[in-house]
Amino acid sequence: MSVTRSGDGLAQLESLLAIGGPKLTRRLAQAERRLCEIAESHGPGLGRHAVSTLGAGGKRLRPLVLFLCAGESAMRDAVGAAVAVELVHMATLVHDDVLDRAPIRRGQTTVFKAAGRGAATSTGDYLFSRAFAELVATGRPEAVRTLSDASTALARGELMQRGDAWSASVSPDRYILRCELKTAALFDAACRLGALFSEPSSNGTMPAAVHHLGAFGARIGVAFQILDDVLDVSGPAERTGKHRGTDLLDGTITLPLILARERDGDLRDLDLRTAVTTPEQAASVCDRIALTGALADSREEALGYVAEAKAALGELDLPERQRRALELVADGVVERYA
Amino acid sequence: MSVTRSGDGLAQLESLLAIGGPKLTRRLAQAERRLCEIAESHGPGLGRHAVSTLGAGGKRLRPLVLFLCAGESAMRDAVGAAVAVELVHMATLVHDDVLDRAPIRRGQTTVFKAAGRGAATSTGDYLFSRAFAELVATGRPEAVRTLSDASTALARGELMQRGDAWSASVSPDRYILRCELKTAALFDAACRLGALFSEPSSNGTMPAAVHHLGAFGARIGVAFQILDDVLDVSGPAERTGKHRGTDLLDGTITLPLILARERDGDLRDLDLRTAVTTPEQAASVCDRIALTGALADSREEALGYVAEAKAALGELDLPERQRRALELVADGVVERYA
Repeated sequence: MSVTRSGDGLAQLESLLAIGGPKLTRRLAQAERRLCEIAESHGPGLGRHAVSTLGAGGKRLRPLVLFLCAGESAMRDAVGAAVAVELVHMATLVHDDVLDRAPIRRGQTTVFKAAGRGAATSTGDYLFSRAFAELVATGRPEAVRTLSDASTALARGELMQRGDAWSASVSPDRYILRCELKTAALFDAACRLGALFSEPSSNGTMPAAVHHLGAFGARIGVAFQILDDVLDVSGPAERTGKHRGTDLLDGTITLPLILARERDGDLRDLDLRTAVTTPEQAASVCDRIALTGALADSREEALGYVAEAKAALGELDLPERQRRALELVADGVVERYA
Repeated sequence: MSVTRSGDGLAQLESLLAIGGPKLTRRLAQAERRLCEIAESHGPGLGRHAVSTLGAGGKRLRPLVLFLCAGESAMRDAVGAAVAVELVHMATLVHDDVLDRAPIRRGQTTVFKAAGRGAATSTGDYLFSRAFAELVATGRPEAVRTLSDASTALARGELMQRGDAWSASVSPDRYILRCELKTAALFDAACRLGALFSEPSSNGTMPAAVHHLGAFGARIGVAFQILDDVLDVSGPAERTGKHRGTDLLDGTITLPLILARERDGDLRDLDLRTAVTTPEQAASVCDRIALTGALADSREEALGYVAEAKAALGELDLPERQRRALELVADGVVERYA
């Protein structure tokens, strides 16, 4: 259930950039530069940690989605919004790494490993603060509120995940709620912000665009998380960059395990806390989960969310290129490493 | 260098409430209610942790200062601003407790102790998010920017403190800079926000009020931190609620130690990391610091900041009651447990 341990890999990134054209590429580059400026502009000590965090990169999936939602008429302020969303995402990753004592993320040493718990916690707090500063600079209170609500949801989701750890009674509905809070809320916010920072169209459909693009973001966010959790069980480790079954070792209860437990009595009776303590044991339980068919069904569930995401787009009269790009992203979140 | 481990005890609170009158008492009660609402309104899991954090109380010194700066004409939105400042303060405390593995704060079990590192980190993040949401609701971008800048400063100060831990070469200037970032920035913000959420006076002096009240806040913030660091050395433990010398055990280099090292060669050569590992050793080094006269000189330094704070008030044409109340706060931060 770690949002990006397995990477945000979107195979279709190049196709997307081709559809998005030079403006999308330029906006992404502007966001990247701004992220670096923010990292470097705050004292040598903090700068070093923040730069290493930012530099570790990732695919900038949330900024990408935001710019695609803003479309051709993306305003300059969309860059600030994209930076803000990415900063919040990074803040949560830095804090997650502290909690998980993770030495490596995306092949790079984490702030936690390089600088310790204290520096990493502060760096996360700093990235949070800067996120709000970026949005304030746009002069749009509804944008700040959107990010603030999303941040609150992230914290609630994180807390829910830790509270449900090792539990034998997490229902599929509760799992989905956790995905909505922990992952989808920020995609939802990215899409809403994209709509907010797009020139209002002459027919005045902006509130509808904010609503439906938000729904699109929420759905792909859930699909993204489900797929992430499937990949944790299925691997392959050489693509995801981590052992199979890290969620099992953490006690994080994800959809594949929930569904598998409904079908396999032995899995249902298994106490993860005592029975799964080594990567080898985790891999063996992963195999057992796969045998129940739970991975295919989880993937099916994710595809259902992708379909709903596309249906939300159908409510809007979007330019064809924009719709195609957004659909490509929606497909992409469930086709990672496929 | 922990901002509130030794409490925000202000002996003059009752006098202040008397000067501030029923309106101040009412605003403080409104802020308290709002803090509880925020704590309780977000799911049973998070609510429980947040409520325990909020309930641990403290003297609400930052909201108090904010309301005093807003004065008689404090607007309703001053309550939201006060709540926001207190939420940021609490968020940093919750994160500090995780880093310090602190089981108790203000006589109450910490979120860290009650619910673990993960829940405490999330609770801190949640309180941060809610802080910004409170300010956004006021519809004043400059207010959000003020808080965002202060939060950034806090994170920078925290990072600086962790980076300087155990160092033998922290200068008094560097120590003061750390106080400005880690502590004074939020007092500065509280005072600026108070000025912002006060009805503009007919003579249009508001920008001056924001500036000078901010300066007032920054000065009392530095004085507050110096005194906190003096109390860590002087005790008495039964008043501060913690052993003497916890900063020494943490490797936190504070003004009393810096000044004492200039005067006592043995202290200068002491490696805290190896020589101070038990509360008894810490108490003994505290005695040695006291013998150099460094505590009196640190207190003198704090009094200098209090004088500067009062001088900043002198730049403004404040109602007599308001000035008297603010001066009482300024005196109060260096008279704790005197």
